[in-house]
Amino acid sequence: MDKKQLKMSTFNDALAQIKDGMIVGIGSGSTIELLVPKMAEKLEQEQIDITGVCTSNKTAFIAKEQGIRVVDVNDVEKIDIAIDGADEVDNDLNLIKGGGGALFREKVIDAMANRFIVLADESKCVDYLGQTFKLPVEVDKFNWLLVSKKITAYDNLLVTRRMVDDVPFITDNGNYILDVVLNERIKPMEMHEYLIHLIGVLETGYFLNITDQAIIGTTSGVKIIEK
Amino acid sequence: MDKKQLKMSTFNDALAQIKDGMIVGIGSGSTIELLVPKMAEKLEQEQIDITGVCTSNKTAFIAKEQGIRVVDVNDVEKIDIAIDGADEVDNDLNLIKGGGGALFREKVIDAMANRFIVLADESKCVDYLGQTFKLPVEVDKFNWLLVSKKITAYDNLLVTRRMVDDVPFITDNGNYILDVVLNERIKPMEMHEYLIHLIGVLETGYFLNITDQAIIGTTSGVKIIEK
Repeated sequence: MDKKQLKMSTFNDALAQIKDGMIVGIGSGSTIELLVPKMAEKLEQEQIDITGVCTSNKTAFIAKEQGIRVVDVNDVEKIDIAIDGADEVDNDLNLIKGGGGALFREKVIDAMANRFIVLADESKCVDYLGQTFKLPVEVDKFNWLLVSKKITAYDNLLVTRRMVDDVPFITDNGNYILDVVLNERIKPMEMHEYLIHLIGVLETGYFLNITDQAIIGTTSGVKIIEK
Repeated sequence: MDKKQLKMSTFNDALAQIKDGMIVGIGSGSTIELLVPKMAEKLEQEQIDITGVCTSNKTAFIAKEQGIRVVDVNDVEKIDIAIDGADEVDNDLNLIKGGGGALFREKVIDAMANRFIVLADESKCVDYLGQTFKLPVEVDKFNWLLVSKKITAYDNLLVTRRMVDDVPFITDNGNYILDVVLNERIKPMEMHEYLIHLIGVLETGYFLNITDQAIIGTTSGVKIIEK
């Protein structure tokens, strides 16, 4: 099976948890873009109704196109369930997210949800966060270079400003993303605390103690890990 | 003496600390807008040269107009001294700032300076932070209402989004300002920690353990408090 098939093998277990009347947080990235049409199919087949709250403009566009009602996050009091992808998943269901640059909005919605489900293929499972992926950190443009130097100072870390076609990548919130090469020594919670205390950091791509369930597509079947 | 005269009475003690070759953080607000021309006069009279780093577009404009060289904060490795105003000053030289909405850039520069001097008239001196002024908190637009509710939940606090002429005020960084009515029970450091852990808060208007010297204009003379 290729990665796309592995991802899609996780959809049934996720969609089964969506019930009539729920407010559903809809994540972003390639996995979720495949999931949304399947979610719309389910609503149609089962004749049920949900309200979506989306983590990116792109996902909101796709969901609306598929006939899913989408509202602004400020207009809901709670989110019943959120489903999102991840760039890395460790054994404690802590994540790195933000490869697509939507980490801030993803974190708002995923952390707010009563239940947060992450979908991934087995290539995303790691022994420690940072093993295969850089940690994205969303920073204000004003003093981004100073913040970058302070992150380097934590443990002589390589930090690069994310670029797209030779110009700096800009998030939906108008900020830069710094990508930080981690190492095995770094403790996620300590690093996260260090980062959010730097003046100019909006959020980090660490998703710690947020995930309730991971549904992992593997070549030998779907693996479900409950926190 | 009126407030303007009280503010200006603090200028000599502040300007005396600016030496040839220094990188000087230049704050924002009404006090600093009065200070900058005096700073330019001093440079001219003493034939000395400094480099300015400014906390707002407005101050940068005024400084340049007065012939002071201004550079971007990302282009300096350190700031020797920063001078700024405040909305409240407590007995430990902790401050509330952000009445003008430039709190984030002020904090970057004031906190980075090797020596930070605050100028104020005696009406800004308070027994506890929040006594006369609301705490400004800079928040991302995306989930501002949710953040506002979480701040209220801290201690049943009144929180309003700052408006100008019936439209939301937007900071230089494209964010909203929430103004929070504090009370005497609230401990600044605990409240600050609570706030920066809310997803969507960029910075708070608390300036804690940053000030090295306060120069206070009083009707009975200038009072200097060293930390």
